[in-house]
Amino acid sequence: MRIHLQNPDNDPLFDFSRAMWEAAAARSPDIGPDQDVSIGVTPADFVAAMRHAEALVCDASVIKALFPCPAPNLKLIFLTNAGLDKLAPFDWLPPGVVLMNNRGAHATKSGEFAIMSILMLANRIPAMVTNQRHGTWRKLWGSALGGRHLTVVGLGTLGGATAEQAARFGMRVTGVRAHPVPHPACEQVIGTEAIEEALPDSDFLVLACPLTEATRGLMNRRRLECLPSGAGLVNIGRGELLDQDALCDLLDQEHLSGAVLDVFTPEPIPPGHRLWSTRNLIISPHTSADDPATYNPHSLDIFLENLRAWRDGRPLPNRFDIARGY
Amino acid sequence: MRIHLQNPDNDPLFDFSRAMWEAAAARSPDIGPDQDVSIGVTPADFVAAMRHAEALVCDASVIKALFPCPAPNLKLIFLTNAGLDKLAPFDWLPPGVVLMNNRGAHATKSGEFAIMSILMLANRIPAMVTNQRHGTWRKLWGSALGGRHLTVVGLGTLGGATAEQAARFGMRVTGVRAHPVPHPACEQVIGTEAIEEALPDSDFLVLACPLTEATRGLMNRRRLECLPSGAGLVNIGRGELLDQDALCDLLDQEHLSGAVLDVFTPEPIPPGHRLWSTRNLIISPHTSADDPATYNPHSLDIFLENLRAWRDGRPLPNRFDIARGY
Repeated sequence: MRIHLQNPDNDPLFDFSRAMWEAAAARSPDIGPDQDVSIGVTPADFVAAMRHAEALVCDASVIKALFPCPAPNLKLIFLTNAGLDKLAPFDWLPPGVVLMNNRGAHATKSGEFAIMSILMLANRIPAMVTNQRHGTWRKLWGSALGGRHLTVVGLGTLGGATAEQAARFGMRVTGVRAHPVPHPACEQVIGTEAIEEALPDSDFLVLACPLTEATRGLMNRRRLECLPSGAGLVNIGRGELLDQDALCDLLDQEHLSGAVLDVFTPEPIPPGHRLWSTRNLIISPHTSADDPATYNPHSLDIFLENLRAWRDGRPLPNRFDIARGY
Repeated sequence: MRIHLQNPDNDPLFDFSRAMWEAAAARSPDIGPDQDVSIGVTPADFVAAMRHAEALVCDASVIKALFPCPAPNLKLIFLTNAGLDKLAPFDWLPPGVVLMNNRGAHATKSGEFAIMSILMLANRIPAMVTNQRHGTWRKLWGSALGGRHLTVVGLGTLGGATAEQAARFGMRVTGVRAHPVPHPACEQVIGTEAIEEALPDSDFLVLACPLTEATRGLMNRRRLECLPSGAGLVNIGRGELLDQDALCDLLDQEHLSGAVLDVFTPEPIPPGHRLWSTRNLIISPHTSADDPATYNPHSLDIFLENLRAWRDGRPLPNRFDIARGY
């Protein structure tokens, strides 16, 4: 198959290289070495490659900048992002082309970021950082995680990894997902519409679901207020999942004891924005899920796994469902 | 046995209560219910109880404030602290009285704090917090822990729990201890005198040993400079284990990428001290090891385990070795 890898022109840290492809091909000897691979970075590279390419591997920024363009032989697009909400509506997708996302690539890094964030909340790090900013020494006692209650919204790659880490630390985990099928790391799983039942008993809430029309604004002010006094919140999904202003109010009022956020509305956070100075809030600049040292190699492994399924006529594990939004 | 529990008069969060004792006694039905227990908080309570007490359970602040005093029947002192460096020299200890520390009580909480700190360093949280303080949005990419190299100084309760957590995350762990006997969570264990061999290959260094004459100033400027560029440091032992000024210099110069410190010289950190504003440094106010909800119950369990050994004529697991210093 003729495969084109297009690098974004603004983020060399995540560029694909020929050596990276060859290493991935060697890890999948049944399918990797048979492919005819080009790598591009300029718009001219892209347009030229698309005249012949049957598969395209790139990130969402490439699609936004360079698509649609003539691509008469294109059958597969593999995007190295997991959340594709910024590409909706998907009218740019040529008819008959199969779209895949990078579901699964973020499990290890996101799971570690999530359990770190929960540990930071349990140990009162957000409040300690606020005290430090003011040069104030004040004893603040934390707690161990065993037996404490975590609610995780979303049980895909990110939420599943979060639930597994939390269970390893002896936490009681409630999962919230669109269809409440059981999950091995969760004591119980409830449907998204039942989330309010779980909130009053949640020491920690982690938002780890995709942004869809069903989840936009899910944690509105009323629901945030349902969390018990002293609860902590983590968001590794999308900023638009919650009412950010209500969250800042509840932190200022110390109803919530802390928050660790990786995603915001808008991004980048503008200078002087309220978020920068809200107390007991830790800001991570939307980098929680990605480890530059392992991200692209892992993405290529996932792509080749899908290519193998395509060759064998099996369903593609990473096929993106446009109607569902993930 | 006549046992006296003396609460400090300045920290009600960690007070022993009668209910707490009775619950601990019920968990050790072979020995707990036989004891004759008093609980005091004022100096007068203490002096009166010491006229008859055979065992004393208290923290170091009680010893500093109220000892020596007449205690003709005293055989055992159980201190609810693990590090007793502030009570040296031990000339206040009546001849023939056996001293115990609270070794073991801090394992869960300290292990969680240590792995949280390592995750924070791997995820660049100290630098993110510094950027946040200045209202600066700047992408900073972290890494997953698998395969990265941790060196832990001390393999007692704190260091052992740290090594076990790190091994669970797939880290390669080198242990450093006075006598380099193997540890199940460590790939290798070296003697303290050989520490410089391990430093250049350490992504992360955790100081988790007691403060003794052998460890005071262990991480001097020259040794801190042996850490590779980008390394991160955690101190949950004692501030005097390292050259704090050299550490601040190496953080300011960005030779080290971050530090999470729970212990300092002096404590509390004075207003205006350099530590408050050193970049990429997180300050925890010496509370990493203790969980108020579980600390005293756990301490009483450990005390009763020692009382059982005393009754049976076995060596006391928590006997404090004055010559060794832990």
